[in-house]
Amino acid sequence: MTAKSQRNWNGDPADLLKASEGFRLADVDPDATPGYPDGKKRGESDLATGADELDELQERLFAQSRVVPGSPAVLLVLQAMDTAGKGGIVRHVVGSVDPQGVALAAFKKPTKEELAHDFLWRIEKRVPDAGIIGVFDRSHYEDVLIGRVRNLAEPAEIERRYGAIVDFEKGLTDRGIRLVKVMLHISADEQKARLRERLDRPDKHWKYNPGDVDERELWPAYMAAYQTAFERTSTPNAPWYVVPADAKWYARLAVQALLLEALEGIDPQWPAADFDVEAEKARLAAT
Amino acid sequence: MTAKSQRNWNGDPADLLKASEGFRLADVDPDATPGYPDGKKRGESDLATGADELDELQERLFAQSRVVPGSPAVLLVLQAMDTAGKGGIVRHVVGSVDPQGVALAAFKKPTKEELAHDFLWRIEKRVPDAGIIGVFDRSHYEDVLIGRVRNLAEPAEIERRYGAIVDFEKGLTDRGIRLVKVMLHISADEQKARLRERLDRPDKHWKYNPGDVDERELWPAYMAAYQTAFERTSTPNAPWYVVPADAKWYARLAVQALLLEALEGIDPQWPAADFDVEAEKARLAAT
Repeated sequence: MTAKSQRNWNGDPADLLKASEGFRLADVDPDATPGYPDGKKRGESDLATGADELDELQERLFAQSRVVPGSPAVLLVLQAMDTAGKGGIVRHVVGSVDPQGVALAAFKKPTKEELAHDFLWRIEKRVPDAGIIGVFDRSHYEDVLIGRVRNLAEPAEIERRYGAIVDFEKGLTDRGIRLVKVMLHISADEQKARLRERLDRPDKHWKYNPGDVDERELWPAYMAAYQTAFERTSTPNAPWYVVPADAKWYARLAVQALLLEALEGIDPQWPAADFDVEAEKARLAAT
Repeated sequence: MTAKSQRNWNGDPADLLKASEGFRLADVDPDATPGYPDGKKRGESDLATGADELDELQERLFAQSRVVPGSPAVLLVLQAMDTAGKGGIVRHVVGSVDPQGVALAAFKKPTKEELAHDFLWRIEKRVPDAGIIGVFDRSHYEDVLIGRVRNLAEPAEIERRYGAIVDFEKGLTDRGIRLVKVMLHISADEQKARLRERLDRPDKHWKYNPGDVDERELWPAYMAAYQTAFERTSTPNAPWYVVPADAKWYARLAVQALLLEALEGIDPQWPAADFDVEAEKARLAAT
């Protein structure tokens, strides 16, 4: 936590939000703003400061990877109930850095071809290259969330997946990919208000899906599936972070803080020239 | 030209910058700011205004495509000599809209697999889907630019490509994809200054490529290849725009204006709900 944008936090966001041993989702208040007591106005100002910091760190990360083989990458995994604000994170947090350094993958309902393969098949293809900040809008966790709630696979297969995910993610972090796994946590009441707004505003109708109401009926089952996912897949190298998201400004600030921390952990450096700088100056001058 | 950001133009950017019949690249001053007499400060302010306009139009374009089959898309094609500012356009113009509605494709030196196919093979795979703003950072035009200058194909094959490009782009515009083909035009002197800056600043070394100096020697041949490309492929449905780019602020403002004009031409509308809004309100209320 050395970034200026983090000076108004009263604790380390990563520590405060991590789903560690004994974590209980039911104990998290979706309307809280853990670690950040100063409210929306200051939060938005710190978000703008953080955007500049993220921008520079991203450029260093990218630059380093152009010259140094095997450079690290970052992968932000976003999971949430509908309307929780994944899109807003992509737009207002990730959207503040150079699009050339970002790879966004939105995972929808699997296609027939995808279903014919292991559930990680389509995921592996979208793992970010060196120097890139990858963002998964939904992910392999769908296969133990909706997969479990809607019985889309046999119980034994669902069970197998937790271990497969842990192994897969271990492989990623071993390769130098920093994982930032985030669940945006909203309350059922807040979701109701947001869905209602989509119905009230004609310019939001396109975002409304009647299926969202059906999923609401399964809210407790989803929360239980998230709880199990945290217990089975929140590891020291790839922990889960649960971010209260009823306050959008807080969720954005917190995810930005987690990304900043990941990048500070990498501490990317401007790479040294792999050519003779003085000789090139002379060549250029001669043109 | 109804956008507020275009109120300080004294002509239609599309008309002023289009490579029409009789266009001569040699007559374009790379340091000029055609149609925009008010200078950098106002230009940057108008760019910020235009970013909001582009943002809303992009969201409408995307929204429409979620509901209306066969919706249009936009494809921005960027070509330029090195250092001309393609990256800055991606970052400061395209980067102002929601990343979820943008698909960026950077075409590097073709791979062995790509070379084994027709030159349009790798291009066709990256044509934007409905509702998306696609951006080509370099494109199929490399195959008649460096391809011609460096004799990377037989003369007859290069000749064939102009017609193939026109046919290909006709197919795109027939499908409702608006093409915005932009050459960012810098002077050889400005390039020299920008390359020198990359050599002077350690945080820019990673952007410097010794090959860029070799390409400088071929400047006149490249300009001739661009001129030929404009003559052979600037069509009424897919015209070329040549944007003076020695002043970065002007180039960004001009490309933004061209994108705004393309989107205004589409005039995307918030789509009507494809469900019964009142029935959904009742269902939601019951949860």
